[in-house]
Amino acid sequence: MKFYDCSTAPSPRMVRIFIAEKGLDIPTKQVDLRNGEHLSPEFRAINPYCTVPVLELDDGTRITSTQGCWRYLEETVPEPPLLGATPKERAIVADHVWHIEIDGWQAMTEGLRNSAPGLKDRALTGPENYAQIPALGDRGKLRAQRFLESLDDWLRDRAFLAGDRYSAADIMALVVVDFAGWLKIRLPEGASNARRWYEAVSGRPSAKV
Amino acid sequence: MKFYDCSTAPSPRMVRIFIAEKGLDIPTKQVDLRNGEHLSPEFRAINPYCTVPVLELDDGTRITSTQGCWRYLEETVPEPPLLGATPKERAIVADHVWHIEIDGWQAMTEGLRNSAPGLKDRALTGPENYAQIPALGDRGKLRAQRFLESLDDWLRDRAFLAGDRYSAADIMALVVVDFAGWLKIRLPEGASNARRWYEAVSGRPSAKV
Repeated sequence: MKFYDCSTAPSPRMVRIFIAEKGLDIPTKQVDLRNGEHLSPEFRAINPYCTVPVLELDDGTRITSTQGCWRYLEETVPEPPLLGATPKERAIVADHVWHIEIDGWQAMTEGLRNSAPGLKDRALTGPENYAQIPALGDRGKLRAQRFLESLDDWLRDRAFLAGDRYSAADIMALVVVDFAGWLKIRLPEGASNARRWYEAVSGRPSAKV
Repeated sequence: MKFYDCSTAPSPRMVRIFIAEKGLDIPTKQVDLRNGEHLSPEFRAINPYCTVPVLELDDGTRITSTQGCWRYLEETVPEPPLLGATPKERAIVADHVWHIEIDGWQAMTEGLRNSAPGLKDRALTGPENYAQIPALGDRGKLRAQRFLESLDDWLRDRAFLAGDRYSAADIMALVVVDFAGWLKIRLPEGASNARRWYEAVSGRPSAKV
């Protein structure tokens, strides 16, 4: 296997943490997003979506999404389970990951990509350019703030987002919270449940990657 | 189990088709989206996200996303596999479903929700109102068109989107193609691979739901 990463980017960090939690050591190639390496003809031949993470399997198959990378690693290295241990847990983790992606991750990327001067015409990832939409940037920031506010209630009666067990839902939410800091959006001061959770998940060795 | 559905809506159709492919018969409650039943206090108590599909398990747990519903059904009724039969297939299906959701489904919902007069202030699903952003509507329509155009190449060397086996990737893409018709966005005339695929997947009994 080979993992295409960018150590400063939040999106592949979701897979980096997952790999660390599984105790794996996968040969990794850094892709220099800052200098546009992902848009080069060489990288387009590897991933036409021009994004990381990419997981290259031993037969050459390339998986080009966090969801796909997670699924392959979970299926081939089941322990510790990060996508749920029982049918019900698996459904809950899938459900929560989806909501976190839509309401947290996508809100943040919309907020950032539609407002950062350095991302002009790069409002979406991928080979095509799309102009920034300022109103979408504003909406993204508002939604990211609301998402972070929602975490406290969510964690009122449980240690981790999907229940008693650490899961991919925690990985994605941790990455979103740290990413939100880029726009100075933070967990509310009084959010004691969310802050207790954040301390626990960001204190794990896997979070250092 | 109990399934909360709306028979005229494309989003829960992804789960309806999945249920039909599994040969299941799950007691179903229709939610009248057209008359705002999803925003009523009664339905908010069932699903605070104010959306269908919802799958209610026998212990009362409620799964409130297509991804979560699919996962529960696949884990409890493995045959026929719709999320892949091997680790590699499962990763490919997860990968493709994610790309179809982002580039197809979300493009279409952005296109429709930011342009339809009847959806003023309902640019996003959920309990909060968000104003329409016309530029996002235009971008969504353009991206939906590009997604439909991309299917022909995708299907050049395979029967179904994830390979030789019908999967959830085909379910989601079929729903997107039919939904795109609401905005008069259609598969290109000369897209013979995509049209052959569409005929096959829309001809299955499951597609009638």
